[in-house]
Amino acid sequence: MSHLAISELLEGKVAVDSQVTVKGWIRTRRDSKAGISFLAVHDGSCFDPIQAVVPNSLNNYDEVTRLTAGCSVSVTGVLVPSAGQGQSYEIQANSVEVLGWVENPDTYPMAAKRHSIEYLREHAHLRPRTNIMGAVTRVRNCLAQAIHRFYHEQGFYWISTPIITASDCEGAGEMFRVSTLDMENLPRTDKGDIDYSEDFFGKEAFLTVSGQLNGETYASAMSKIYTFGPTFRAENSNTSRHLAEFWMVEPEVAFADLEDIAKLAENMLKYVFNAVLTERRDDMEFFAQRVEKTAISRLEEFVTKDFAQVDYTDAIEILKACGKKFEFPVEWGVDLQSEHERYLAEEHFNAPVVIKNYPRDIKAFYMRQNEDGKTVAAMDVVAPGIGEIIGGSQREERLDVLDKRLEEMGLNKEDYSWYRDLRKYGTVPHSGFGLGFERLVAYVTGMGNVRDVIAFPRTKGSATY
Amino acid sequence: MSHLAISELLEGKVAVDSQVTVKGWIRTRRDSKAGISFLAVHDGSCFDPIQAVVPNSLNNYDEVTRLTAGCSVSVTGVLVPSAGQGQSYEIQANSVEVLGWVENPDTYPMAAKRHSIEYLREHAHLRPRTNIMGAVTRVRNCLAQAIHRFYHEQGFYWISTPIITASDCEGAGEMFRVSTLDMENLPRTDKGDIDYSEDFFGKEAFLTVSGQLNGETYASAMSKIYTFGPTFRAENSNTSRHLAEFWMVEPEVAFADLEDIAKLAENMLKYVFNAVLTERRDDMEFFAQRVEKTAISRLEEFVTKDFAQVDYTDAIEILKACGKKFEFPVEWGVDLQSEHERYLAEEHFNAPVVIKNYPRDIKAFYMRQNEDGKTVAAMDVVAPGIGEIIGGSQREERLDVLDKRLEEMGLNKEDYSWYRDLRKYGTVPHSGFGLGFERLVAYVTGMGNVRDVIAFPRTKGSATY
Repeated sequence: MSHLAISELLEGKVAVDSQVTVKGWIRTRRDSKAGISFLAVHDGSCFDPIQAVVPNSLNNYDEVTRLTAGCSVSVTGVLVPSAGQGQSYEIQANSVEVLGWVENPDTYPMAAKRHSIEYLREHAHLRPRTNIMGAVTRVRNCLAQAIHRFYHEQGFYWISTPIITASDCEGAGEMFRVSTLDMENLPRTDKGDIDYSEDFFGKEAFLTVSGQLNGETYASAMSKIYTFGPTFRAENSNTSRHLAEFWMVEPEVAFADLEDIAKLAENMLKYVFNAVLTERRDDMEFFAQRVEKTAISRLEEFVTKDFAQVDYTDAIEILKACGKKFEFPVEWGVDLQSEHERYLAEEHFNAPVVIKNYPRDIKAFYMRQNEDGKTVAAMDVVAPGIGEIIGGSQREERLDVLDKRLEEMGLNKEDYSWYRDLRKYGTVPHSGFGLGFERLVAYVTGMGNVRDVIAFPRTKGSATY
Repeated sequence: MSHLAISELLEGKVAVDSQVTVKGWIRTRRDSKAGISFLAVHDGSCFDPIQAVVPNSLNNYDEVTRLTAGCSVSVTGVLVPSAGQGQSYEIQANSVEVLGWVENPDTYPMAAKRHSIEYLREHAHLRPRTNIMGAVTRVRNCLAQAIHRFYHEQGFYWISTPIITASDCEGAGEMFRVSTLDMENLPRTDKGDIDYSEDFFGKEAFLTVSGQLNGETYASAMSKIYTFGPTFRAENSNTSRHLAEFWMVEPEVAFADLEDIAKLAENMLKYVFNAVLTERRDDMEFFAQRVEKTAISRLEEFVTKDFAQVDYTDAIEILKACGKKFEFPVEWGVDLQSEHERYLAEEHFNAPVVIKNYPRDIKAFYMRQNEDGKTVAAMDVVAPGIGEIIGGSQREERLDVLDKRLEEMGLNKEDYSWYRDLRKYGTVPHSGFGLGFERLVAYVTGMGNVRDVIAFPRTKGSATY
């Protein structure tokens, strides 16, 4: 390909007075009375379009004056410093080739005007052409790349834990069934039940809700692993924070306790925020101007502050004593609500805070029991402006304690045989956490709804494209 | 965490005579008559274990002599150069803490002996503890990291295309249904059909077979994108090359023709192979010794050779003229079989070869039609020792030609409305390809079966863990 990315030109990587070609889409066109047209051409490589200055001496100048938003072009010309405000370089075009017209510009769904975010969502196949979704796409990519880089540099291995699972030990949340049975003609057992032995996997199968338990098997051999893959919830949660299909990052670390992974969470978040601040300054400035005023400043603050740490038990005392009226009353034993978490992070500590050692009765079976017999070594990371962003725990590595807990919770030991094997054979202390990737992207960009930070969101009633 | 990765010690990153702690699992133990025990301790950070030399002066030496394969330990001692063959450094232990015993060593499934690859597959939760699966895990990770790095450096954005799709335009291959309907109590329409409007997404939904069509929407805005995510086939293919759930890499590039993406495929493969040769020499030496003699040499050859290029039509002539007897007869119009591809790559060209411009009747609707009216701009990359590893095409960007093709193939234009929109609004030439990630890992490691290069393989009848 003989053309250059617009980012290369705008970043000054190409010598002035070079002959260059860019290929992209028209954002706007402006014609001067002097017989010159100004085209703003974008190609997704950076936030800004490049301006092509087109003289009416071109053979097809007539075509140029018919260009509208969304048309695709190849522009060749001389790269020159720009006199215009807010742009470093522009192209003095000596050729504009139209690659693709917009059929009926008046009804082009992405015509150059303000569209509501809901309207864009309904045109998910075209919305990456807008400023806002282009910026989201670049920031999302920057965060994903930084996550892989962070773990790789730290000696973690990326593991792809299974998406389809027939394991009986997931259990958390409502799951999607995966099947190839003929729904109109379901096979039946002698007893009249549906015969899942006839299904593709020979038994009932579902979409995973977490890679954690599988991840623990690999941490129990490779020491440091992480997953980064899609997970699923068949929940009818019509909120700005829930998707039926979302991406999770789940590190799992052998020989690590709760302190270790609280530190890992802090280091990871600061690493990826620094990456965005450094690499996607252009997009972040847009978000700060148009979406969330503090988009940049809150990240800058985040990366310089030490995380606060507080025990759940102490957090309850703080909340009780603060004199604030909460919708959900606070007492030891209740799960913290968003309003409580935000008070702690935003008002009391004014910093990201790690809340540790929750009552065991509100937490999952696999979390490690503390000496007090009442709490488990669980932690949540709660940040100003977002609330809970990470949840994790030290895992119960003692077989006898785990078995007792399974029993208490009425779970069947047989269903957990492979998980229990990890405790039978060379068990080690280990810990991990989960990070919802879309919530991270929503926080960084200031986008109010996770549906707008993933290309094609899946929610109750919606799986188009 | 105060301990060090074994790789850091063996690579000489720590000063000799330092006091160090490692944590890991026993691979072997050997006791000398002189009252010294030699422990080989691995932690997954590299292929080799580190040797800990334990004198009988330790308080718990008695425990040490009961250590068996799989026990977890924390070893502290002085790092010294090793006199032993094949190891650079060892630890003169002054403390060995046993973290986890192996319950009944005689029946430990991963006891230190040769296990068949099928046996390991049946113990997928413990197999990463073996030399071979540890090596696979590190090489798989190395390849995945290199893929992300390659595309990131080239200005591509990683897009997560949807896993669950209700789109009517996938079609390729058999799909898994995703549903939350109560199978024992299926809702029915007035006509007696199953009422999928009651299902979670309001209509029938399936697991994706490819992110390509979705990827095209983002390439038509961001120019260069790639996907790297799980895809699914509900096929009853009990072969060493098929999984029901596998990971695919699918770049899609605007303003790129077939030549451009053939070159992209070549550059990508060479980049990731170089990464493995540089970063995972230890594991690759193991594969060359134990699994596939040419594991290293064939990669070295691959990265230095230019890819050959041949038109499908010329390839047919070569195959017809070569005098070799093929199981599947060759004539213009047939799809190439593995035996044909391997003859071309291994015998005729003795190099990776890009086969281009296949008959349109054996290819998908979205491939760009060539001037000859008979072929489409499709390509496969075929390599010695593996056969087809990449398949791609230039996409049909001309709306009228695409529509005609949809019609010819009896496909419903309405079902493709969003895909057609990309051609209505600023269409651009664009191209992409797909790479099956497990096949890549299987090729690099020499592992004969894709089930052994993914942590928990999903195949017909099997979705345990």
